[in-house]
Amino acid sequence: MLNEMLEFVTTQQKLLFDRAHPLRLESGAALGHVTVSYETYGELNADGTNVILICHALTANAHASGYNSEEDKTPGWWDGLIGSGKAFDTDDYFVVCPNILGSCYGTTGPTSINPTTGQPYRLSFPAITVRDIVTVQKRLLDELGVNRLATVCGSSLGGMQALEWGIMFPDFCETTIPISTAARQPSWCLALNSAARTAIKNDPEWREGNYLAQPAKGLALARMIGMISYRSPEEFEQRFGQQKVDPSGNVFVVDNVFQVESYLQYQGQKLVTRFDANTYLCLTHAMDSHDISRGRGSVKKALGSIRARALCVGISSDVRYPVAHQTRLAQDIPNGEYIEVSSIHGHDAFLIEFDQLNSIIANFLRKDNS
Amino acid sequence: MLNEMLEFVTTQQKLLFDRAHPLRLESGAALGHVTVSYETYGELNADGTNVILICHALTANAHASGYNSEEDKTPGWWDGLIGSGKAFDTDDYFVVCPNILGSCYGTTGPTSINPTTGQPYRLSFPAITVRDIVTVQKRLLDELGVNRLATVCGSSLGGMQALEWGIMFPDFCETTIPISTAARQPSWCLALNSAARTAIKNDPEWREGNYLAQPAKGLALARMIGMISYRSPEEFEQRFGQQKVDPSGNVFVVDNVFQVESYLQYQGQKLVTRFDANTYLCLTHAMDSHDISRGRGSVKKALGSIRARALCVGISSDVRYPVAHQTRLAQDIPNGEYIEVSSIHGHDAFLIEFDQLNSIIANFLRKDNS
Repeated sequence: MLNEMLEFVTTQQKLLFDRAHPLRLESGAALGHVTVSYETYGELNADGTNVILICHALTANAHASGYNSEEDKTPGWWDGLIGSGKAFDTDDYFVVCPNILGSCYGTTGPTSINPTTGQPYRLSFPAITVRDIVTVQKRLLDELGVNRLATVCGSSLGGMQALEWGIMFPDFCETTIPISTAARQPSWCLALNSAARTAIKNDPEWREGNYLAQPAKGLALARMIGMISYRSPEEFEQRFGQQKVDPSGNVFVVDNVFQVESYLQYQGQKLVTRFDANTYLCLTHAMDSHDISRGRGSVKKALGSIRARALCVGISSDVRYPVAHQTRLAQDIPNGEYIEVSSIHGHDAFLIEFDQLNSIIANFLRKDNS
Repeated sequence: MLNEMLEFVTTQQKLLFDRAHPLRLESGAALGHVTVSYETYGELNADGTNVILICHALTANAHASGYNSEEDKTPGWWDGLIGSGKAFDTDDYFVVCPNILGSCYGTTGPTSINPTTGQPYRLSFPAITVRDIVTVQKRLLDELGVNRLATVCGSSLGGMQALEWGIMFPDFCETTIPISTAARQPSWCLALNSAARTAIKNDPEWREGNYLAQPAKGLALARMIGMISYRSPEEFEQRFGQQKVDPSGNVFVVDNVFQVESYLQYQGQKLVTRFDANTYLCLTHAMDSHDISRGRGSVKKALGSIRARALCVGISSDVRYPVAHQTRLAQDIPNGEYIEVSSIHGHDAFLIEFDQLNSIIANFLRKDNS
């Protein structure tokens, strides 16, 4: 029933940088060929100002809303928020979701062919930062005829982009909506990412990045480690507790695994079928280098330079980017406000709590129009 | 200077169960030969009642206080609390610390020789539970002439034992001091242990438990995953932040690792030199099966059966066994009280905050004597 209401949408691609006009990265390196994969929903107005930019998190892609083909009616990852009558209302706005630089869903990244060698970049793909991701997004918007953003919104790594947008292009953004994120990558998140990368690199199939088939066990374990912090202890307790997969079986038999183990293993295996291991390394490094104060004096100074009205959204049970990070952002952004989503689902609540998010975001954007 | 004050102590061993009198495990299986390694500090009184039992956590051993040899003056893991004039005062008490069943420090476990086959048990070591660990400890105390415990104390897996002691032998314990633990293994901790076990099993050197050399990469990663939850996000932020190992080097170079990554890798490698991988699997399974309500109706009922006065100690920044678990224990134990250690060090604070713990525990035990 829900799927019947989905809009058909084609994922598009654009070549944004080439050898003559390479992308200059924050590190100083250059990328001579950058293609971006993206989707758009709604219509751009005449002066190019009714635009919402959606920034995705670590393993997502450009497919944020609708469905891509008659065969695959999988709704986009933020279909609950994007569409007619929803928070990101396609009746009024032109919504753009690009796959980020360094990803493996059609935008240039470690799986792309290096035009100089004719081989995939793999580990030779240069280190990128959140600022590089935003630079590429800005070029895409320029090409699409966008003159101003009504808002830019994302959670987690997406929220890091929303912050950088406000700092790098202060006059381009009317508002920004960073969700469950931080001014700089917290050391504890860095530790979790580090363990996840070690899981991938420990897999002999990884072969220093030159794998033929995916290092499946390592990538699955990386995802398991991630999932533990994407959800909350309270949710695990409610959903799984200490239940065994076979509750009537012998509880002392180790092979009768716990439901939570089985859940994590399933999540791990699912990621292996849809995400690339070197890309996981590349994008977690981009997250770990996230620091809005780099070259800008201090976090306070960087946040103080944001002119956009900002809605900083926290999730009550987020252990990865706790609400304290969000309230601090709201305090230090001149026109910032904080609002909390009450949820048991932890960091991942941004993919689940659509009722609350729709109401919070729609209300915030209405204020902007009034 | 501190080492000069250490007392010399010999780790001893006792054969407690043999083929004629095997250990009957909670699962129904039998172990025909069980040796326990233990240390004692102080003197047992004539009626065998001035006894303190120390229960260690996952990777510790019987060496809780003093030093073992002139060559190795490493102080025991709880030397800060055990000794003359300390909380566990050896001037008054006879303190016993046994290496737990299933461990690899002299007590029978997966590295021990199965007398039936002449080969190490490895994965064929039967599944054990916290109750089995306590059963073996009780037998040791019987052999030592102990008639009553003044207190039983432990943190984490050690705290699980302290709880089970209060339930299994209600008239044997004057008091119990469970620290940073839970009535049943929380699902989130189970998830972390599950990821750690997967790290070991993913290592091709593991060979289904039949390794010649340790599965070093897997065991080190298991420890990394553990360490992330043994310490607190606040501590990581203060100690490491986003600092690189070479702060003056290029921050964009991935090989210039973060200090927190280097710290976790070091901790991982350190465990590999002193702990066995199959033992890690065995003892985390024992933790994961911990549930004081099993066969006893409910958690409330089990806690309600404790007759010992109980001091339930929480650590303010513990993410693994948060203080809410400890306050609930104190509420449901008839003679239970709760006290909190204020610390940034997370779950591991029980190995660090000796000033607070000495004062809290000494005060509690004094009340008992008055």
